[in-house]
Amino acid sequence: MKQPLSELYRDSLSLLTDLYELTMAYSYWKSGTADKEAVFNLSFRSNPFKGGFAIACGLSHFIQYIQNARFSEIDVEYLRTLQGNDGQPLFEEAFLQYLLALKFDCDIDAIAEGSVVFAHEPIVRVKGPIIPCQILETALLNIVNFQTLVATKAARLRLAAGDKAIFEFGLRRAQGADGGISATYASYIGGCDGSSNVLAGKLYDIPVKGTHAHSWVMSYDDELESFQAYAKAMPNNSIFLVDTYDTLDGVRNAIEAGKWLKSKGHKFQGIRLDSGDFAYLSIEARKMLNEAGFSETLIFASNDLDEHIIQSLNDQGAQVDVWAVGTKLVTAYDQPSLGGVYKLTAVRRGEEKWQYKVKLSEQAVKISNPGIQQIRRFYTESDKGKLFIGDMIFDEAGKAPESSIIVDPVDFTRRKVVPPNTQFEDLLQPIFRKGKLVYSPPSASAIREHSKEQLRKLHPGIKRLLNPHQYPVGLEQSLHQLKTDLIMVARTDRDRRAKSATDRPFFD
Amino acid sequence: MKQPLSELYRDSLSLLTDLYELTMAYSYWKSGTADKEAVFNLSFRSNPFKGGFAIACGLSHFIQYIQNARFSEIDVEYLRTLQGNDGQPLFEEAFLQYLLALKFDCDIDAIAEGSVVFAHEPIVRVKGPIIPCQILETALLNIVNFQTLVATKAARLRLAAGDKAIFEFGLRRAQGADGGISATYASYIGGCDGSSNVLAGKLYDIPVKGTHAHSWVMSYDDELESFQAYAKAMPNNSIFLVDTYDTLDGVRNAIEAGKWLKSKGHKFQGIRLDSGDFAYLSIEARKMLNEAGFSETLIFASNDLDEHIIQSLNDQGAQVDVWAVGTKLVTAYDQPSLGGVYKLTAVRRGEEKWQYKVKLSEQAVKISNPGIQQIRRFYTESDKGKLFIGDMIFDEAGKAPESSIIVDPVDFTRRKVVPPNTQFEDLLQPIFRKGKLVYSPPSASAIREHSKEQLRKLHPGIKRLLNPHQYPVGLEQSLHQLKTDLIMVARTDRDRRAKSATDRPFFD
Repeated sequence: MKQPLSELYRDSLSLLTDLYELTMAYSYWKSGTADKEAVFNLSFRSNPFKGGFAIACGLSHFIQYIQNARFSEIDVEYLRTLQGNDGQPLFEEAFLQYLLALKFDCDIDAIAEGSVVFAHEPIVRVKGPIIPCQILETALLNIVNFQTLVATKAARLRLAAGDKAIFEFGLRRAQGADGGISATYASYIGGCDGSSNVLAGKLYDIPVKGTHAHSWVMSYDDELESFQAYAKAMPNNSIFLVDTYDTLDGVRNAIEAGKWLKSKGHKFQGIRLDSGDFAYLSIEARKMLNEAGFSETLIFASNDLDEHIIQSLNDQGAQVDVWAVGTKLVTAYDQPSLGGVYKLTAVRRGEEKWQYKVKLSEQAVKISNPGIQQIRRFYTESDKGKLFIGDMIFDEAGKAPESSIIVDPVDFTRRKVVPPNTQFEDLLQPIFRKGKLVYSPPSASAIREHSKEQLRKLHPGIKRLLNPHQYPVGLEQSLHQLKTDLIMVARTDRDRRAKSATDRPFFD
Repeated sequence: MKQPLSELYRDSLSLLTDLYELTMAYSYWKSGTADKEAVFNLSFRSNPFKGGFAIACGLSHFIQYIQNARFSEIDVEYLRTLQGNDGQPLFEEAFLQYLLALKFDCDIDAIAEGSVVFAHEPIVRVKGPIIPCQILETALLNIVNFQTLVATKAARLRLAAGDKAIFEFGLRRAQGADGGISATYASYIGGCDGSSNVLAGKLYDIPVKGTHAHSWVMSYDDELESFQAYAKAMPNNSIFLVDTYDTLDGVRNAIEAGKWLKSKGHKFQGIRLDSGDFAYLSIEARKMLNEAGFSETLIFASNDLDEHIIQSLNDQGAQVDVWAVGTKLVTAYDQPSLGGVYKLTAVRRGEEKWQYKVKLSEQAVKISNPGIQQIRRFYTESDKGKLFIGDMIFDEAGKAPESSIIVDPVDFTRRKVVPPNTQFEDLLQPIFRKGKLVYSPPSASAIREHSKEQLRKLHPGIKRLLNPHQYPVGLEQSLHQLKTDLIMVARTDRDRRAKSATDRPFFD
């Protein structure tokens, strides 16, 4: 332990990276190819949670990361200690001096945070000198992968909960301090109404909520006594956790405390159920509260909830007003990683023409898409508002798309024709130009509104939690053709070289 | 966005907490019961990954957290802005002043980091004034839950990999910056040999490793050219990623680069496979390398690996020397949360006798254990070394255990008799006394050695990855009896009060 946790982020986050970003940087520098320019895309290969969409999240944090990106003397001091397999320094001193002077002068374009996005789309595009573009990879993926995942999970919870409130209560089960803080932020972007996480509340102006735990009740001889003490101490924060011993007993005791609150002119705000059958217990609790004259008192529920449980409980008529969701949200339990990747799509030296690039794979879904990509989102407009109808990935550097045929990136036999004169918007917006911020990030609450607005423009079939309709996303026809040509050239090259192919029993 | 990510941890982490810790603290203070003393235990309810054990991890970070725990003016400034349901301040000013002066003068005992632990055992025990003991809850759970989970996953990978090396390569898929940093630390404690994460390498003296990505290869016209350039640039860090276009083609190209390295007196360190059938490809690659005179050159494999895949590939004779594990390790993919809880086990005022406490639940596994608990681990010793044979949770404040019968905390019909004069050690060690650190945390590498040593003392059946033997953990008989009595009293109280029980169709 060299530094306490609170010191972790004092210097810069430039060492928060995989070593190979730095060994590649060194190798470009050493081999005299640091003047290469590159274009990289961040994208993911399938929509998370077997769903029909994702909510892009993490841009604000990535902007902060870039603005602080620099190698400090302290960073370089550590790099100086690293050795290669011969015991000699891994990096030459002149390279370390180069790192100290390195500026992250990249052009970065991104889809606005809170937007609905889909598999294969470039969410962030990074263009510029190959070394800084490459070094950004790990942190960009770390930030955007996780926040996009959690924002999407929150949006799914929001769809399940309808107009009921959702609070994120997951900090204790989150993956580390920042796993908690950024999960709270992303949960809020995706549609949660607040959190128990005080630090995240402070940092991002997110409403915070909390009352008491079982330990409060257990520290007294009697549950009723504990509720009365709590009501007296915090009459303006009166939500009682009722299941320490027996839930409906707890509701009776909470009602007693509520009567006292009422007699003193205070509000009896709510009860929280934390175990048992919420369909049964919430309906019983609602009756008891109503009979006692507390029809405004809210019922909170918490206990390993996810979007499927909430939907099922709602279908069963559960009388829950506020869903408190923890573990399943902040860890994205059923799919704890988005699996986003950062792929080179084009490269050039100096003023040369861009060379477009693909990475091959035996799995079609893992073959990367080439080009300097932009996304065009088509929509229709009616008295019900806008409806998104399909996204076209096209090559911004090529000629403007003549046709509006889009080709599925995995199965080229699936195509969609977008009718002429369909309205559209292009999604990638300039964020940095040569390292200078040219974008003003909205507040967390504005981003949250944007994400709600975006979801309204999606067909309900695409928002279905299970077996959703697939939103059409495809490559513009000429980009598809270019990709196919590149694949064929690479495969032919390979076949030409593979002299001893006959003894290989498998399909290429 | 009020503060950049790098500023997050500048002040203190005291606001990294659920709000209810603070509303409870306020309520104790306000109701004049801040002089209560409490004992809390951190434990989990089932061993993760359907396995037979866990590796305790997180104590070093928790120690740092406590040493920095304080409420600053900046923290309090935010708390001052919070409002209750009547629009009035949630906290009185005098309480905020109390927080500013609050010291975390607790007695904390914990099991040494890196030890094998089991469900129901108190890993950390916190005793002292109820307010600081309560406030610590969220951060303690956040730190210990996640690090214990990942250390356990790493230990399982270590069991699957045998004597082969394992590197953690997961930062890009980790849950936030700290989700990455603490995952790397815990992976190392659990048995990984190194990481790609440079910052974690720096902070904890963990070996870091990395060479190049597909983008390096794609930035050249030709794979061979790219390998040659890399070999020339970093001749002492020569591991080539061979699957950008075709894996065995890539091996041929790497061998060409390796010949050049050899001719210049350098080592051809390795190749990395990142897709495809590792059983087939690693065997073929091994043959090709051996035939070319590179029998010392290592084969790395990476691609969504977990302990089950590694075990299966080893069973198939895969020739992999180094396993690089990312997503499945750092997110603990198949169970991304440990679900540890922090339960009140005893409370008293002033010099009163301790009152022992249980929390009821309809699920036996969720009923908490009372008392001021200590764990006694029994072992036998032979020429093969120590073998752990069972753990007894007993009440440290009660009389020393007369009998050595231990009772399963969930199924009381399961008991184990420990023979008289069996050797034992007590696991909870003093860490803080009245807030003063009385323990010297070992280095990460010493903790890692301890965890390896601990695993050697477990019967192989308990270490089985699937359907392991259950290690005996139980309550000392008189503690079990005390718990049963407390449950019966609480249930009887409840039955007495539940006047309208007849209309409830369910079992209590």
